[in-house]
Amino acid sequence: MMFVSIIRIIGILLTLVSLTMCIPISAAVVYGEYAVIPAFLIPMGLCILAETLLFFVTRGYVFKLNTRSGFVVVAVSWISTCLFGAAPFLISGHIGNFADALFESVSGFTTTGATILSSVEHLPRSINLWRMQMHWLGGMGIVALTVALLPVLGVGGFQLIKAETTGPEKGKITPKITVTAKILWFIYIALTAVQTVLLMIAGMDFFDALGHSFATVGTGGFSSRNASIGSYRSPGIEWICTIFMILAGINFSLYYRILVGRGIEFLQNTELKVYTFIIFIASLIIVPFIMPLYGSFGSALRSAAFHVASIISTTGFSTADYSLWHPAARMVLFILLFIGGCAGSTAGGIKVIRWVIMAKQMGVEVKRLLHPHGVFSIHLNKRPGREDVVYNVAAFMFLYFFMLMLTAFAAAINGADLITALTASLALVGNVGPGFGKVGPAENFGFFSDAAKYWFSFAMLAGRLELYTMLVFFMPTYWKK
Amino acid sequence: MMFVSIIRIIGILLTLVSLTMCIPISAAVVYGEYAVIPAFLIPMGLCILAETLLFFVTRGYVFKLNTRSGFVVVAVSWISTCLFGAAPFLISGHIGNFADALFESVSGFTTTGATILSSVEHLPRSINLWRMQMHWLGGMGIVALTVALLPVLGVGGFQLIKAETTGPEKGKITPKITVTAKILWFIYIALTAVQTVLLMIAGMDFFDALGHSFATVGTGGFSSRNASIGSYRSPGIEWICTIFMILAGINFSLYYRILVGRGIEFLQNTELKVYTFIIFIASLIIVPFIMPLYGSFGSALRSAAFHVASIISTTGFSTADYSLWHPAARMVLFILLFIGGCAGSTAGGIKVIRWVIMAKQMGVEVKRLLHPHGVFSIHLNKRPGREDVVYNVAAFMFLYFFMLMLTAFAAAINGADLITALTASLALVGNVGPGFGKVGPAENFGFFSDAAKYWFSFAMLAGRLELYTMLVFFMPTYWKK
Repeated sequence: MMFVSIIRIIGILLTLVSLTMCIPISAAVVYGEYAVIPAFLIPMGLCILAETLLFFVTRGYVFKLNTRSGFVVVAVSWISTCLFGAAPFLISGHIGNFADALFESVSGFTTTGATILSSVEHLPRSINLWRMQMHWLGGMGIVALTVALLPVLGVGGFQLIKAETTGPEKGKITPKITVTAKILWFIYIALTAVQTVLLMIAGMDFFDALGHSFATVGTGGFSSRNASIGSYRSPGIEWICTIFMILAGINFSLYYRILVGRGIEFLQNTELKVYTFIIFIASLIIVPFIMPLYGSFGSALRSAAFHVASIISTTGFSTADYSLWHPAARMVLFILLFIGGCAGSTAGGIKVIRWVIMAKQMGVEVKRLLHPHGVFSIHLNKRPGREDVVYNVAAFMFLYFFMLMLTAFAAAINGADLITALTASLALVGNVGPGFGKVGPAENFGFFSDAAKYWFSFAMLAGRLELYTMLVFFMPTYWKK
Repeated sequence: MMFVSIIRIIGILLTLVSLTMCIPISAAVVYGEYAVIPAFLIPMGLCILAETLLFFVTRGYVFKLNTRSGFVVVAVSWISTCLFGAAPFLISGHIGNFADALFESVSGFTTTGATILSSVEHLPRSINLWRMQMHWLGGMGIVALTVALLPVLGVGGFQLIKAETTGPEKGKITPKITVTAKILWFIYIALTAVQTVLLMIAGMDFFDALGHSFATVGTGGFSSRNASIGSYRSPGIEWICTIFMILAGINFSLYYRILVGRGIEFLQNTELKVYTFIIFIASLIIVPFIMPLYGSFGSALRSAAFHVASIISTTGFSTADYSLWHPAARMVLFILLFIGGCAGSTAGGIKVIRWVIMAKQMGVEVKRLLHPHGVFSIHLNKRPGREDVVYNVAAFMFLYFFMLMLTAFAAAINGADLITALTASLALVGNVGPGFGKVGPAENFGFFSDAAKYWFSFAMLAGRLELYTMLVFFMPTYWKK
């Protein structure tokens, strides 16, 4: 029974994803890339066929899910979507190796943006659009998809929300999940549309503007150009992307609050304040170190802000090879690899709120040291924090560090030097994209072995699902009756 | 009144430290290094003179300390001892620059073992002995000194213990602090004596054996040879050092338990089990990667175990330039830089127990995810953990990461590449000594600017005192009435 429920949810999900292939198909038609159309039509057709069969076979079954199978649904949906997303690469032959195609697809849906391709400009535009579109689909997440989908199917999807939404401070933003999902989708689409229009005004054509908006709002980082956003040589495009990367890294429930006239909560949000403060300070610290390279304060600031936004929001776009920056400027970007965006955004990483919680706990500990008999606890957004929130963060930090080190070790086995291995790990688990060294912004992940690419794909998925969702299956507790 | 108390404690402390200069002075006499004798006699004489004056001036004052001034005593004792320890370098002219001499002295007393000297073999043996002796004095700590000293002066030193002993799980090992201090000193001296004898049997002369035992038991890492322990080319000496580095990284209160016939607690200790498990596994992982370099399993294992012990115990000895190892073997050592020894040992770093607490909390969180209404909490050594222990660890991790990043940034401003800056920071804050890149085992910290060396000295001290003790003065809470 439960198995049927899982299969059926995934069937519907994949069909919805496959229907969005109409976008790259129309791009292929517009640009006359007829050879690549079957690469989208075949998986799309098979998916619709399979779902039709499934629909008739499973008619009459009652949906049933518990906490344990909730985790299975989330894990299996992500894995099967990533496998599905790899199909156009393999069928078109543009990425012939399975491990490569899977890596690229996982990197897409997890909004990582790390690529195995040394050049993307020779690819058909429709394939590049699909790469960026995967970011968009993954970005807000199969999260919102499943959230919107399950209630329609009459399944209370609440245990999925618990397993999937990002960050420790969840807080239901509206009582009804369906309503929430619709509002989140509206905000998401609105941001994408506005950025697309702005990028077109700044000079991009429609499909490039759409693709890069997909990649920005999903905090992904894939581009249709080898030199990423830098290839447009347009300050306007850079600033637009900077602003939308920052916006995509903000908790979407805060936009909801603006929509319903509670904008004051937006301004009072602790995490948002710290997030913007970090972006501001990090950019200003970088500027003096890169001024000699860029000539003027203006262009140094533009480049600094762009890369700070790109890394903290875990997007991974670049306009310059920051590997050539002064070590102190690089160190600032390196530190940002550990931070990540806000909880409830499309960004990955550790998330600002977790650092805020630890910092506040540090303040409490100092008070306790000086006043051993006092009773203190942390406050968030002017309310006392839930007592278990620090526990949750401490446990998460352990798991994150553990996953980072395993992934860095996997990279090192492949012969990657320390900084390549470490930043590859940070960039994959944190869903950022590029790192430093041999995985820097001008490089790619192609040189790793297939085995490493499979592990990296797992690491991206685990990072995207905040580790627990993916790693719970490796815990003996999960399998205990 | 409180000011007088602080001055008087520090006066006695410095006098005791200065009296131990008899050891390098006797080495100087034995080896005919007469020119260097004044470099020890002058600071020693001045110290005794000052203390005599102080004794008569402050006679009749009643000692008085509160929590706030407890922190001042600890911080000022460490800083003044480090300044004092730099005197022989400056007076003898062997380290002419003040920032260098201070760095070397702080590195000594904090048991870090990072040096600014590119060669130590041209130094008088007495100067090298003093370098290693600083490890020994700092190692068990001016901690034990102050613990033993304060009760003699009639001051309840308990608030100092709180500020100074290492690790989150303290637990008074005997009710009377004086007794504790004496037992700890006995264990400490016994370990040193046994190692000295063993090293002499293995072929070292007396002063070399004594010096290297000082540096091992204090988990320091200074050596009188440029190639560190490797220069002796003796498997026996390597294994002796490996074993004593591991022993010095164990909680000393566990040895106490063996002494009083409670050896079972030694065997049941969670932290000790994890510590030995990590050493065992890390060594075994490294072996296959370095076998081609060493020819035989035996010598690969010896070298692997030596460097694993050296880094996890935060000693920092080396027998080989591990920068030349396979990246995967280097990655294992790099990961160990984040771990550190056991709480209550002379080792620095984050400490095994903190990782154990976070790992256990992770297990609890997984249970909570699967059974949302259950109540779970962590257990340590088969007893439930204090509820605030996870809070303490989370706060410490924040502070540690913050200090690491500040220090890495300071190194990067000096032009150090990412891996040099990052591992220099890990090696300094964690009191390990060498790192990777330009601060690898065959390199030194001499190339940094004076400003960087001052910051590094602060970072070593802050790391040694588990951050809070040093950083509390920068918290607004401390200064609030």
